[in-house]
Amino acid sequence: MHMPSPKPASEWRTTEWFNAPKPPTLAGLRGKVVFVTAFQMLCPSCVSHGLPQALRVREAFREDDVAVIGLHTVFEHHAAMSPVSLKAFLYEYRVGFPVGIDEPDSADGPPLTMRAYEMRGTPTTLLIDREGKLRTHAFGHLPDLQLGAEITALLAERPLELTAAGDEGGRVCTPEGCS
Amino acid sequence: MHMPSPKPASEWRTTEWFNAPKPPTLAGLRGKVVFVTAFQMLCPSCVSHGLPQALRVREAFREDDVAVIGLHTVFEHHAAMSPVSLKAFLYEYRVGFPVGIDEPDSADGPPLTMRAYEMRGTPTTLLIDREGKLRTHAFGHLPDLQLGAEITALLAERPLELTAAGDEGGRVCTPEGCS
Amino acid sequence: MHMPSPKPASEWRTTEWFNAPKPPTLAGLRGKVVFVTAFQMLCPSCVSHGLPQALRVREAFREDDVAVIGLHTVFEHHAAMSPVSLKAFLYEYRVGFPVGIDEPDSADGPPLTMRAYEMRGTPTTLLIDREGKLRTHAFGHLPDLQLGAEITALLAERPLELTAAGDEGGRVCTPEGCS
Amino acid sequence: MHMPSPKPASEWRTTEWFNAPKPPTLAGLRGKVVFVTAFQMLCPSCVSHGLPQALRVREAFREDDVAVIGLHTVFEHHAAMSPVSLKAFLYEYRVGFPVGIDEPDSADGPPLTMRAYEMRGTPTTLLIDREGKLRTHAFGHLPDLQLGAEITALLAERPLELTAAGDEGGRVCTPEGCS
Repeated sequence: MHMPSPKPASEWRTTEWFNAPKPPTLAGLRGKVVFVTAFQMLCPSCVSHGLPQALRVREAFREDDVAVIGLHTVFEHHAAMSPVSLKAFLYEYRVGFPVGIDEPDSADGPPLTMRAYEMRGTPTTLLIDREGKLRTHAFGHLPDLQLGAEITALLAERPLELTAAGDEGGRVCTPEGCS
Repeated sequence: MHMPSPKPASEWRTTEWFNAPKPPTLAGLRGKVVFVTAFQMLCPSCVSHGLPQALRVREAFREDDVAVIGLHTVFEHHAAMSPVSLKAFLYEYRVGFPVGIDEPDSADGPPLTMRAYEMRGTPTTLLIDREGKLRTHAFGHLPDLQLGAEITALLAERPLELTAAGDEGGRVCTPEGCS
Repeated sequence: MHMPSPKPASEWRTTEWFNAPKPPTLAGLRGKVVFVTAFQMLCPSCVSHGLPQALRVREAFREDDVAVIGLHTVFEHHAAMSPVSLKAFLYEYRVGFPVGIDEPDSADGPPLTMRAYEMRGTPTTLLIDREGKLRTHAFGHLPDLQLGAEITALLAERPLELTAAGDEGGRVCTPEGCS
Repeated sequence: MHMPSPKPASEWRTTEWFNAPKPPTLAGLRGKVVFVTAFQMLCPSCVSHGLPQALRVREAFREDDVAVIGLHTVFEHHAAMSPVSLKAFLYEYRVGFPVGIDEPDSADGPPLTMRAYEMRGTPTTLLIDREGKLRTHAFGHLPDLQLGAEITALLAERPLELTAAGDEGGRVCTPEGCS
């Protein structure tokens, strides 16, 4: 679904990252369009559709423009999808973009980021705009054509040519990194 | 391929149209992004990839924004792909967007529009911007993700809100950028 | 459907053949298992499923064991699927097995072989056993696994090793050719 | 590959079974055709091709005729593919046929059944005939059409009608061959 009046996307809460020299934060990605695929390694539709699509997004857009982030939102079979299993999974499926483990709930419910976004399940796709606002939240299948269009529409909201110049008064650096 | 210095797209030359109450012209579509799929009804890759993709484009974008046009560019087996065969083909494959028959060459060479665009074969995809300039010319397969992105990038060049009113006095600039 | 009490399959009635030095007859193929795909060149499901499957059958089994026959059973859009169109179609889709044109009905109804077999439409698959009896008659999709099993079950009814020896008193020649 | 002079298939060596009230043995399946898919839950090609094909085999043939067995032959990422992970995997992928865990090698090499069969990797398909002889050993992709044919050819070696009665006095030979 598209957000009628978009609000700031919640910072993700994670316990561990793969494929990331240092943990990426939403704040640190300000200025880029952020594509998030929330998945579980034992969710068949994530394996056959969600993750391959995320890999295509990674290939189609430049890293300077679009950040691709995986979020392992385990809400069932916790023991079966431990970090050691996820690590081997990412290796075998050639997932090279950063993947964070959504912070488990103490009471065995859905993990914290999943809950904050009120995700209904996996796969879920989030699109966050250059200003950090949540613009698309889709559960299930999203056609490539539409996804390519939505990402590009968000990219166009602030022309790429302006990115460098516009930094002057706007972008800031934080402990988590510079926007 | 993308056009480094885009030039006005040639008006197509056709002999007959299907699915069009009156023959569409490139000039008449000025202001819209125009997606053209050049195909032959007996070209296997057009049938399995090119035309299904065109149908997806038709479904994904609004008619006010994007025109989807088929061009039957027969350059072989002319007798096998006559208008009567094409008509049944379009019916059976549920192709509902306008399809024009590229004007045959008198000497049995490639038809006139195909030649004017220097197409290498079928399927060929053309993207023409709101000003009538040729921006993308792709022979063969174009991934949906990239196509969705390219169409949307062209759409973003003049905001949709300006389409109706802004045409009068020519392009304008606003704080958000120039149309 | 499978035939509970199989009966002799009707000889096909055709007006023209492609990919066949001389017109094949059912009688002439006695001793082989005969796989028939009835199709129309403008039937989308024939193009995407029926014919590719027939090509796989041709590749998977030996010509000495299994005959693969196409039957162009045009029951609509007659002018659009004339022999000249079919010829180009077979060439472009790399269909190399014999294809016969089912004899048109004088009153513009379904063609004669289609009617004799009471086919409901296209694609239709027929399997005829070594003795010329109709054993399978399937309208629509037939999974490869099941098709491979059915063909092999028919092949097994008379061991291949016996084919040569059993010829003695059995095979005959007719005006249509020798078995 | 097909076995030129088939030999008795080695009994599998396993540590645990899923979907089986009691551990199936090759000896206990004598009289049936046995289809074995050797896989790893984190092997992409097993997930996309090998296991779906095994499920199709299970659906296409009767349990009285064909036994379908999965063998989890872990030869890498051992910690990632533990029994608890496999159990959740089988649940999520709706794998209902018996799956045994190939007995690990003490020295962290390929597991014992995998080694006994000299499998090159996963997915590997084995076909074992009614007499317990290994007849097909295929690494990688096996087309459905060919697989359906091979299973049926093995089924035909002893007619189904004889299965019940013929077991009593042991195998017999006839002019057509031995059962």
